[in-house]
Amino acid sequence: MSFDDAPVIAVGPKPDPDFDAAITAGGGEPGPLTRADGLVWTDSRAALPALPPSVRWVQLPFAGVEGFLDSGVLARNPKVVFTSAAGAYSGTVAEQAVALLLAGVRGLWRRETSWDAAGAGARTGRLGGTTVAIVGAGGIGRDVIPALRGLGVKVVAVNRSGSDVSDAVVVTADRLDEVWPAVDHVILAAPSTAETRALVNAKVLAQLQPHSWIINVARGSLIDTDALVDALRKGTIGGVGLDVTDPEPLPDDHPLWSIPNAIITPHVANPPQHLRPALLARVEVNVRRFANGMEPLAVVDADRGY
Amino acid sequence: MSFDDAPVIAVGPKPDPDFDAAITAGGGEPGPLTRADGLVWTDSRAALPALPPSVRWVQLPFAGVEGFLDSGVLARNPKVVFTSAAGAYSGTVAEQAVALLLAGVRGLWRRETSWDAAGAGARTGRLGGTTVAIVGAGGIGRDVIPALRGLGVKVVAVNRSGSDVSDAVVVTADRLDEVWPAVDHVILAAPSTAETRALVNAKVLAQLQPHSWIINVARGSLIDTDALVDALRKGTIGGVGLDVTDPEPLPDDHPLWSIPNAIITPHVANPPQHLRPALLARVEVNVRRFANGMEPLAVVDADRGY
Repeated sequence: MSFDDAPVIAVGPKPDPDFDAAITAGGGEPGPLTRADGLVWTDSRAALPALPPSVRWVQLPFAGVEGFLDSGVLARNPKVVFTSAAGAYSGTVAEQAVALLLAGVRGLWRRETSWDAAGAGARTGRLGGTTVAIVGAGGIGRDVIPALRGLGVKVVAVNRSGSDVSDAVVVTADRLDEVWPAVDHVILAAPSTAETRALVNAKVLAQLQPHSWIINVARGSLIDTDALVDALRKGTIGGVGLDVTDPEPLPDDHPLWSIPNAIITPHVANPPQHLRPALLARVEVNVRRFANGMEPLAVVDADRGY
Repeated sequence: MSFDDAPVIAVGPKPDPDFDAAITAGGGEPGPLTRADGLVWTDSRAALPALPPSVRWVQLPFAGVEGFLDSGVLARNPKVVFTSAAGAYSGTVAEQAVALLLAGVRGLWRRETSWDAAGAGARTGRLGGTTVAIVGAGGIGRDVIPALRGLGVKVVAVNRSGSDVSDAVVVTADRLDEVWPAVDHVILAAPSTAETRALVNAKVLAQLQPHSWIINVARGSLIDTDALVDALRKGTIGGVGLDVTDPEPLPDDHPLWSIPNAIITPHVANPPQHLRPALLARVEVNVRRFANGMEPLAVVDADRGY
């Protein structure tokens, strides 16, 4: 590839005009693998072919790349940069979090069936001007922030490292006890680990405010469900928006289904039909970065495993 | 007032510590009217007192100031700058529009009562990456834009003048016919005039897409309700989120109440309990502007009537 030529990018295992279009939009030239500079692989179940020496970059689908790592293809191609789709799917999950929080705070959880302006008005809260804690400031957490800022919300981002997060006040996770009573609402976007199991328990729920909404788009295990049901029944918090639950799936006879201010969506924040557009968008971005000599997003570290 | 002194701002007709706090936060000094540079008037039903010559600015409550104009108080004090609260209440209405749009697109209008991941997933749309038309780019319309941009939405702002709108492509109202088929969703935020009556009629509804949501936070008369019910029944649009209706109030036997993807809130986008915090926030901003020699927001033009 000469300096000013568009890189040739192959698509596999099957031809796909949508991916060709994304490659072209990113400044690449769709072409055959035999003379390709890069390869976009769209099927996580299909093994990668032998790569010609011209290939310097491979884009893998999905965020998890365990199957490719296990196959040894990265080890066999040490000079090739492999990228996952990590982070490409966080935007739609973040959008679900904002939708649930707004539906909660603005009282849309109570589906109106008659013109009761006084009652509905009293239930209509205001998100703007409040402070929202985002627990876990990874891709999803960071993707929530621009929308919240656009709504006039102050954001407290809680992470383990204390590293900077754009447009948010950062608090380290060891100071969570100070966060709960200081914020209006909470969005959970932390991974499921031993440390985060039942992170929101009875003690934490007691520190939140009567108008506080808790949104969970991460893992159900982050909340002690029994303590949550208890708090909702006693009315000590404003409500909860859950895309994930513990147990999951939530059985039909679970009390959460019958609590009006518990909005439940059955783990659909990133539904199947959102995967393909998100991967297409990531391919366009990464082809543009590759064509301009920048490191593409989400480079896989074989030692780290992701 | 010397150059570096805080301006003295009086509050009336009654003392109010919250307004004193807003004045202090804005860099002013709460004090008696007899030596005040400015006056914050918190009750639209109470007539203004005679103003001492030191008063150069009066902040009135609410956006409408007809009562004060009719009383002749502006004419009697030609050297005093009067400001209304115009625009101070648009943020909460904008927030309702975003909440309704997200609840619609993300499928929250269908309250889940069982763990149907396949069904709920198929109903979960994505707002990010879509194009939303905002018809009427006044205070409410402009206040919607930062949140939509934060969600990754492209905004087309439709106004009469064609004047620039931050972070939006502007189209003049005479080209609305080109807008309907080119956008994914529509937010109505235009005033009620002869030109905007039944702006969204059967012909317009036919140009929208099967996934298009229409949000109305302006006036019910902007939509031809019968044509809307027809489109919803035939499934030619995605759904509708209405904070205003025609007729209003919507009678209990109206067909809109029983259409699942018609989310109705009974004209509560700006409920009474939001007025006071919004006015307090405006007072703080305007005291800061006054203290710094800037023109305060929403100066009343007695000739124009607002």
